[in-house]
Amino acid sequence: MSEATLDVVGIGNAIIDLLAHAEDQFLVDHELNKGGMTLIDEATAERLYAAMGPATRASGGSAGNTIAGLGSLGAACGYIGKLRDDELGAAYRHDLLASGVRFTTPMAGDGPSTARCIIFVTSDAERTMNTYLGACVNLTADDIDEALVASAKITYMEGYLYDEPHAKDAFRRAADIAHAAGRQVSLSLSDSFCVHRHRADFLDLIANRVDILFANDSELLALFETDDLDAALEKVAAMVDLAAVTLGASGSVVVRGGERVTSPAAHVERVVDTTGAGDLYAAGFLYGLTRNLPLAECARIAGLAAAEVISHFGARPEVPLREFAKLG
Amino acid sequence: MSEATLDVVGIGNAIIDLLAHAEDQFLVDHELNKGGMTLIDEATAERLYAAMGPATRASGGSAGNTIAGLGSLGAACGYIGKLRDDELGAAYRHDLLASGVRFTTPMAGDGPSTARCIIFVTSDAERTMNTYLGACVNLTADDIDEALVASAKITYMEGYLYDEPHAKDAFRRAADIAHAAGRQVSLSLSDSFCVHRHRADFLDLIANRVDILFANDSELLALFETDDLDAALEKVAAMVDLAAVTLGASGSVVVRGGERVTSPAAHVERVVDTTGAGDLYAAGFLYGLTRNLPLAECARIAGLAAAEVISHFGARPEVPLREFAKLG
Repeated sequence: MSEATLDVVGIGNAIIDLLAHAEDQFLVDHELNKGGMTLIDEATAERLYAAMGPATRASGGSAGNTIAGLGSLGAACGYIGKLRDDELGAAYRHDLLASGVRFTTPMAGDGPSTARCIIFVTSDAERTMNTYLGACVNLTADDIDEALVASAKITYMEGYLYDEPHAKDAFRRAADIAHAAGRQVSLSLSDSFCVHRHRADFLDLIANRVDILFANDSELLALFETDDLDAALEKVAAMVDLAAVTLGASGSVVVRGGERVTSPAAHVERVVDTTGAGDLYAAGFLYGLTRNLPLAECARIAGLAAAEVISHFGARPEVPLREFAKLG
Repeated sequence: MSEATLDVVGIGNAIIDLLAHAEDQFLVDHELNKGGMTLIDEATAERLYAAMGPATRASGGSAGNTIAGLGSLGAACGYIGKLRDDELGAAYRHDLLASGVRFTTPMAGDGPSTARCIIFVTSDAERTMNTYLGACVNLTADDIDEALVASAKITYMEGYLYDEPHAKDAFRRAADIAHAAGRQVSLSLSDSFCVHRHRADFLDLIANRVDILFANDSELLALFETDDLDAALEKVAAMVDLAAVTLGASGSVVVRGGERVTSPAAHVERVVDTTGAGDLYAAGFLYGLTRNLPLAECARIAGLAAAEVISHFGARPEVPLREFAKLG
């Protein structure tokens, strides 16, 4: 097994976020699923965009946000995701390269346009996401760059990918490449509705191909169809080497075998927009893991990265996160 | 004189902002004019964009920001500015319409692309702006929608427009239409370097066509080539009906004839990015004026609007400003 040249390679839906403030009544009027991620078709995306307020546009996507956070912390990263060769695709690619991320996935020359997520942020800082997957549906196992995956200590995949037809194969191929190279495989459960849609697949994947699992409490409960967090933590501890479970304002709990490490949430002056909270938690945690830091230190950096991203609009850090990595 | 159906119509450079954090060393390496607005050509824009970090994209432009702020406060507004019919132009137009702004300027079907401002925000919250004017250079007097201008209580123009070849004529035409309809004309001096570039034109305009002037202290000092703010305030009071001069963290001073009203700056938890501070001050102030509020109340709303925009990345409000208008 050769030495890893990258810390983490992320595989995910490459999505441009369009963010705007909205009132709760707007969500009601448009029958939006508050706090969730709903898949929408292009016509609905255009209708919602026309109805939405003045918008901020930035690169998003769960794994993309995590990789951007890792880059900001100072990690060496790669990314695999499908863009169309349009203006939004060019913007997404710019942001990857500008973060120092290796990005080799061929951009589609035809077919659906680059994916958009239309995000409404309400005054309670909750985000309601509506995703048109666009070009993402064309990610296939062929897009898994074997050399890139094999070069990274950890391959990190978002559960949202399971909403695409060919992503299961891409997932498995990436995991197999990573394991063959002696690397680790990590999965984020993404969203409790996503867990409901793909529970059997996720359980199989977690049991057989995942070493490090990220979830929030409701996703973990959805996975095991229980409302007993303690029982769910025991179950997941038996299935993966390591699981990091976020608990919102209560911080997080990390399980590794019989070991449990709980951490408080980092202080946030004012929570503005929770978009990207879980993604940045994963970024901070993976940063710590790739530096072989103790679990409590991984969780501490994770909490700081999440705190930065929820203190402002948008799913990616606005300031370099490197200082968080130094404080430990 | 018929009753005005709009509060304010803004005329300005319609620009998409690309914002990213940068270190001071980056500004030095790229020979950027920290804190200023520098005009750049398209090749430089592409070079700077390639070098810049992950970026957030949002509609900007000085008068555009002011109009967006006014819309957020609940005013009825129009906007005149030149876009190209490309993706950035469509995004800018979306944001105007989404703010309830009347926008009738024909978008260019050919010629330079929609303008971009590449903005680097340093850790001290200072913004360094680099503007490729693109389609804006093609704004002419023909683009001044006579009915739109005549319908607004106040026509508001940004000084930056004087960097375009035909803008002087557009300016004068708009001012003449407004005055013929019994309305008021307002100008923002925009930037002290801009004042240096166009001092004689600005002085002539202020003396003959401007009723309400917005400036910060350094712009006002540049206008009168003095370092005595008191003397500059006296001079400007003799030239316009009303002048509102911002003083950074020291708040603002408003002069009307012999009257002077000073106001402290609104409290800001943490200043993140000063982009748009002056634009949103003007928004709050004009809102108060169109409601015939006392000058101190206009300045108070102005300060609150400015405080909102400097507390986050980007030049436009992230939350509805209407509550600020109510508190007085």
